[in-house]
Amino acid sequence: MTTRVLFAGKPAAWDDYREPLRKACADAGLTAEISPDMGPPESVDYIVYAPNGPLQDFSPYTGAKAVLNLWAGVERVVGNDTLKMPLCRMVDDGLAEGMVEWVTGHVLRHHLGMDAHIHGLNGEWRDTPPPLARDRAVTILGMGELGQACARSLTALNFRVSGWSRSPREVPGVTTYHGADGLRPALCEADIVVLLLPDTSETENTLDAEAMSWLPRGAVVINPGRGPLIDDDALLAALDAGQIAHATLDVFRVEPLPTDHPYWTHPQVTVTPHIASTTRPASSARVVAENIRRGEAGEPLLYEVDRARGY
Amino acid sequence: MTTRVLFAGKPAAWDDYREPLRKACADAGLTAEISPDMGPPESVDYIVYAPNGPLQDFSPYTGAKAVLNLWAGVERVVGNDTLKMPLCRMVDDGLAEGMVEWVTGHVLRHHLGMDAHIHGLNGEWRDTPPPLARDRAVTILGMGELGQACARSLTALNFRVSGWSRSPREVPGVTTYHGADGLRPALCEADIVVLLLPDTSETENTLDAEAMSWLPRGAVVINPGRGPLIDDDALLAALDAGQIAHATLDVFRVEPLPTDHPYWTHPQVTVTPHIASTTRPASSARVVAENIRRGEAGEPLLYEVDRARGY
Repeated sequence: MTTRVLFAGKPAAWDDYREPLRKACADAGLTAEISPDMGPPESVDYIVYAPNGPLQDFSPYTGAKAVLNLWAGVERVVGNDTLKMPLCRMVDDGLAEGMVEWVTGHVLRHHLGMDAHIHGLNGEWRDTPPPLARDRAVTILGMGELGQACARSLTALNFRVSGWSRSPREVPGVTTYHGADGLRPALCEADIVVLLLPDTSETENTLDAEAMSWLPRGAVVINPGRGPLIDDDALLAALDAGQIAHATLDVFRVEPLPTDHPYWTHPQVTVTPHIASTTRPASSARVVAENIRRGEAGEPLLYEVDRARGY
Repeated sequence: MTTRVLFAGKPAAWDDYREPLRKACADAGLTAEISPDMGPPESVDYIVYAPNGPLQDFSPYTGAKAVLNLWAGVERVVGNDTLKMPLCRMVDDGLAEGMVEWVTGHVLRHHLGMDAHIHGLNGEWRDTPPPLARDRAVTILGMGELGQACARSLTALNFRVSGWSRSPREVPGVTTYHGADGLRPALCEADIVVLLLPDTSETENTLDAEAMSWLPRGAVVINPGRGPLIDDDALLAALDAGQIAHATLDVFRVEPLPTDHPYWTHPQVTVTPHIASTTRPASSARVVAENIRRGEAGEPLLYEVDRARGY
């Protein structure tokens, strides 16, 4: 029997995903029909979803067994009251790999003091070496799949890694803290802090003026997580006061970041245009196909969202 | 019986090394006297050596059992005809760790295209992601301790790593080439090439105009090895012709790099002032003490230099 799969993303995305999705479903042994135009909503078995696409009302899809998000973040869909079926996040190798590469690269950049060399020393031979990574403390806020993958990469380079999450976590080689009371000790020795929390009402402004005041003076902030995790005005004030030495930001409350936003021109801010972790079609199509296979076989879905927690 | 150890480095270095060396010898169970002034040369048992220090004539040290170099490179001492006793290179954890951090950081910097973000995009949201590391080819010239340590770090990040050395080497996860005939295939697919060869008469100008022509157009050169490995005029020509997109250089034929050298101001060259891998006293003192312990116990020395090969 043919499994009927609606592709509900932007039309341009369909061009990128058509072949990878069809190939991945075939490779998973599925007989599936996949298209952005599947006819009667009640005939659809699965919805492959991107929150920036046209579908916002799930109520006509009465027979759908799951909504399979193409994005790691679900904040733009998890509160949708018309969504009654299971919702799954995207966790694919490409997402985690890209994130680990971006985070490891920017942590090493700040650790090594690369910016001075990239901007140029103009003939000045300043050969004081940086400390070794074993003497550099990095704290990761958020110990989900991506936070743990980054922690593994940084501990392999000998960084002293701490992690903070809402609920307790045990992560090998990482000093872990949790809950509201754990945030201050997680931050108070961090030379570099990396934000990899999900975007929920409880994580908004996790890095506010008070939390920034707990960091050692001259700490570096790296945010490849979600824009609302940071209180932007407080960050700009902390940068100007020297409390934060530099902020490297990949995500923003409004994207693309408006051309007149002060982040673009601030000398102690580096803007990267949401490239740390982007869904790449081939690897994410394999995750979608595996979840359809599981759904059809009656097996538990991968990466199902806890709707109450929001991620 | 007391082991007599001459410290033959610059006087300023003695300030850094006195306590670490005495502590490391005590920790190794040795009864040792260590000083830059040990009286009669024939009474000296071991010489802790830095090539930029005052000692250049080893012939009076008739009783010395080994010269223990504080530097990884031995090119400034290996050809000294007065040196008849065993010579050991420095291979310490700090050197390798620093090198791995610098190489991994600069490979990721070029891989991620960081410079554009560090210089600033001026409001332009260009969100095409870089490829994943698994689709990026890095070739390391030189598969000694440092080359292999960097290869391990880069393969852990999924880079496609190839290695080239003078004699054949087997390195897990690395495609290896060797000898004169192996250089072209090692270079012809490299997006990024890292130079970690020793400085010998045979490795001088390994990266000359012909070798650079074998690289794919737009390749990146990273040299934390030794200055003479690169033909500087050929590199400047290849940069200006677009054959090489960027060169990040930590070592130079003359150091400090003269203030009027074109590398300082070339827009496609990054100069770092020989900081990739520098001897740090605490960790290197432990290596020196272990070699003295081995010498006194009649065990084989660590990292003894093959004088004929020059490293």
